[in-house]
Amino acid sequence: MLVNRRTIRIEWGDCDPAGIVFYPRYFAHFNECTIALFEAAGLPKKRQMLKDFKMAGFPMVECKARFLIPSRFGDDVVVESRIAEWRRSSFDVEHKLFRGSDLSVECFETRVWAIPDPADPERIKGEAVPEEIRARFR
Amino acid sequence: MLVNRRTIRIEWGDCDPAGIVFYPRYFAHFNECTIALFEAAGLPKKRQMLKDFKMAGFPMVECKARFLIPSRFGDDVVVESRIAEWRRSSFDVEHKLFRGSDLSVECFETRVWAIPDPADPERIKGEAVPEEIRARFR
Amino acid sequence: MLVNRRTIRIEWGDCDPAGIVFYPRYFAHFNECTIALFEAAGLPKKRQMLKDFKMAGFPMVECKARFLIPSRFGDDVVVESRIAEWRRSSFDVEHKLFRGSDLSVECFETRVWAIPDPADPERIKGEAVPEEIRARFR
Amino acid sequence: MLVNRRTIRIEWGDCDPAGIVFYPRYFAHFNECTIALFEAAGLPKKRQMLKDFKMAGFPMVECKARFLIPSRFGDDVVVESRIAEWRRSSFDVEHKLFRGSDLSVECFETRVWAIPDPADPERIKGEAVPEEIRARFR
Repeated sequence: MLVNRRTIRIEWGDCDPAGIVFYPRYFAHFNECTIALFEAAGLPKKRQMLKDFKMAGFPMVECKARFLIPSRFGDDVVVESRIAEWRRSSFDVEHKLFRGSDLSVECFETRVWAIPDPADPERIKGEAVPEEIRARFR
Repeated sequence: MLVNRRTIRIEWGDCDPAGIVFYPRYFAHFNECTIALFEAAGLPKKRQMLKDFKMAGFPMVECKARFLIPSRFGDDVVVESRIAEWRRSSFDVEHKLFRGSDLSVECFETRVWAIPDPADPERIKGEAVPEEIRARFR
Repeated sequence: MLVNRRTIRIEWGDCDPAGIVFYPRYFAHFNECTIALFEAAGLPKKRQMLKDFKMAGFPMVECKARFLIPSRFGDDVVVESRIAEWRRSSFDVEHKLFRGSDLSVECFETRVWAIPDPADPERIKGEAVPEEIRARFR
Repeated sequence: MLVNRRTIRIEWGDCDPAGIVFYPRYFAHFNECTIALFEAAGLPKKRQMLKDFKMAGFPMVECKARFLIPSRFGDDVVVESRIAEWRRSSFDVEHKLFRGSDLSVECFETRVWAIPDPADPERIKGEAVPEEIRARFR
């Protein structure tokens, strides 16, 4: 099972008046980690993927996170990301953020594989995840 | 039980290349809705609360959200926020975001009442929620 | 000359570890003030404007700002915005942010009126500002 | 004269519904480039610098930027940063963002060296830049 690791420098602008990460910024980082996971699986960059697979993206339908240890600006943290489960048109991604060897944040995402809705180009609809995509993660 | 309602204009800068809200921005809005809920309960602004109650804030320890219907820039949405449960040193907040009468996003937060750690001013620790605070929400 | 005034609550998430506004957040607010200025002039919401005028937006080409007095979370500030000058395919917007009667931030934007490039739908190009738009601001 | 180069991946969350960088996000990146410039000069991380030099930071007093070529999510861009001028208690930083060999964004910052105001710990005041700091950039 593919696990991708990325080191992220916690930035001054990620942090709030308490001096710790403003938690929505963790989700921005995790979102990019999910994109990086597809690239690590040998798929093209997301911009090219949208064209190649005529897709609209993989919007979030559900997410939950636990914040165990706060991080501060200047910390270098490591995020480990993996696909936890594939379903027909949705999938789960798991992120674990470590500071040194300490698990600091856990995030669990459920996303849907989306294409533009043929009935209304302003809307999107779920679609089966292409077998070619799943195969990349085995 | 106090329920606070806020109307939020979804901004251009809240949205991503798919034209819908970049989901970490929902959490930024919900965070402000939690702060507004305390103000709606008759408490002073957060900056003053931190001084009055010698507290460090109410950091998130766990949150989960479901994204049912996407919102786009220019949408005026309404967020209803309430305390779902008080525990000794933590509490749960529930946010429901509506577009018109449609429930679009649900978020459930668990936060801890935190004070500066007397042993290390750079750290924070949980503390019992003052009775004066709970009383405001009855 | 139309001047639009908006009250903005400085949010916890707008501020950095120094407890003052992280300055990129001022630009996010000013961007929305520019959008609001067009709406105040009687034009439809930006999402509709993009369709009605077959435009791609009004991207920034130059901006400068002066930060005179810092703002903190919980401050209610007022931004006054106006078009400072129209040129053929570009225009200048001026924002003044006040805390009480004190001018706190000044921002001066130069933006271009952009349409999708007929030669390449992924690119945009400048176009003359429609007379119907200018007329709204007189 | 020290010039620091950083490669930045433009993220999905940096971009707006036009598919290009939401310009306030450039300023967030440039802010971090300024911090990285001090670290590249052999100074400790900003969190430690604040302690070592009993400083409050180096808040922005003026900035201007030109946006020449838009960038899109997935682009890897390079930012070159350098101190353009030192004055007694303020200094100028220049950032040039390149996509390949094309200059895409230029930013010019004026910042002040700030310490907590002894008369009011909630306020900050300008102070002479320590000679030890300037020496690092020669």
